[in-house]
Amino acid sequence: MRQRYQLKQRPQRSRSYESDDHERGACEWCEYALVITLATILLIGVSALTIFWVFYYRGGYAWADDTPDKQFNLHPTLMVAGFITFSGFSVLLYRICRCFRRIYVKLLHAIFHALAFPCIVIGFLAVLDYHNKKDINNFYSLHSWIGFVAMGLFGIQYAVGFFSFLLLLICNKGTAGFRASLVPIHAAFGILTFVLGVAACLTGLTEKAIFGLGAERYSGMVDEGIIINAIGVAMVAILAVVMYILSRDKFRAPESRGIHMRTSVDL
Amino acid sequence: MRQRYQLKQRPQRSRSYESDDHERGACEWCEYALVITLATILLIGVSALTIFWVFYYRGGYAWADDTPDKQFNLHPTLMVAGFITFSGFSVLLYRICRCFRRIYVKLLHAIFHALAFPCIVIGFLAVLDYHNKKDINNFYSLHSWIGFVAMGLFGIQYAVGFFSFLLLLICNKGTAGFRASLVPIHAAFGILTFVLGVAACLTGLTEKAIFGLGAERYSGMVDEGIIINAIGVAMVAILAVVMYILSRDKFRAPESRGIHMRTSVDL
Repeated sequence: MRQRYQLKQRPQRSRSYESDDHERGACEWCEYALVITLATILLIGVSALTIFWVFYYRGGYAWADDTPDKQFNLHPTLMVAGFITFSGFSVLLYRICRCFRRIYVKLLHAIFHALAFPCIVIGFLAVLDYHNKKDINNFYSLHSWIGFVAMGLFGIQYAVGFFSFLLLLICNKGTAGFRASLVPIHAAFGILTFVLGVAACLTGLTEKAIFGLGAERYSGMVDEGIIINAIGVAMVAILAVVMYILSRDKFRAPESRGIHMRTSVDL
Repeated sequence: MRQRYQLKQRPQRSRSYESDDHERGACEWCEYALVITLATILLIGVSALTIFWVFYYRGGYAWADDTPDKQFNLHPTLMVAGFITFSGFSVLLYRICRCFRRIYVKLLHAIFHALAFPCIVIGFLAVLDYHNKKDINNFYSLHSWIGFVAMGLFGIQYAVGFFSFLLLLICNKGTAGFRASLVPIHAAFGILTFVLGVAACLTGLTEKAIFGLGAERYSGMVDEGIIINAIGVAMVAILAVVMYILSRDKFRAPESRGIHMRTSVDL
């Protein structure tokens, strides 16, 4: 019996000079690098494509009384940068920076959201001022309602996050329990804010395609329509990749896996 | 030392005739019942609101050569029923039916998706035929691109799920490993399909609001515009509630928690 077992084991050992565990680890790292690279390309690509669209088809940017359309162009660009590119990187930092100290990852998370914050505020003011200049009602569309909720959640999340996870560190030990109990709530609402941001961008792109091109030209598959659709498809791809990365437990930094199991932050 | 321990323990025991664990359990069940009820109301409500919108503002349903607009009305109604109501219930069944045997939950999951299937197919044919009758291009918009991907994923998921998790049960033991390895992939792609379905519905509602009402009336906040926005808001609420339920590990049926931890299906 023992001899049979040894006979079975030997060919496996001599097949390769690396162990199976080692190979599996390499595979994991390969998958990790591939997915993070794909996410990075998509997150930068979606903002680059939006800027290209505005310059090539929409006449670029301006903020003056006689160029409201160019002022409007700030709205999609800054909202995509704020809600998708910067927020996306901020969310993914907890997976990308596996080997950093926790406090640095937190600071980077706060910095990326701090970059997203003015983008969202200026993007919002740009469209508000554009509507007022053109005498169009505010907050009438589904896009604006979703965007409003997303902006509200973003603001609350930023305030709560800054206060709880950075300011309360002054009293590190005394607030540990409170901070740990906030983590799953902050994570769940953070993902919801990101998904709502994507939904607001997709409905906004649909509005802009119809208003900007008109039903006839949009349905005639003109180049600009396809570019707008491509921006939307890139956003859907980002959503898929971000959800995939967040759902993979093994992409987590080793020290946070314990917290994950305990507090059941699944998203 | 032992005496001090006993003194500390006594007041806790006499404070209430129920133990803390019991109270916590009751709280969990209360939260569970509340969230599942909310999800049920929203999932049924969104389809009811869509049917109300079509009958009250869009003249009801028909499928004839001289009433293409009434034929189009089948598209939003059936897509909302298929991608949101039936698919939503199907996804949630794994949390609602905590005490059922696994095979019954699977069968119910398959049955709800079997109800969604004809809705999506007929909803798709309705808009395809409407476009052909009105001589409008197919698949030009972002909405149609997202919807196409969502339909494709739905079909693949249904075929793979039916084959792997029901047909392969004929050889239960031999296929257990293969089926277990498919679970996280099926779950991740299932959630993605659901999110894409919601995204397709939101962009579709935006299109319909602008095409059906026109920019002037939609921005004038007419009743129909608000009803359309309300349908969209209900979808966003469903997305939030479904994501919340799926992220709560304690809502899982007890026997599947082990599988969850092992295969790290986080969504």
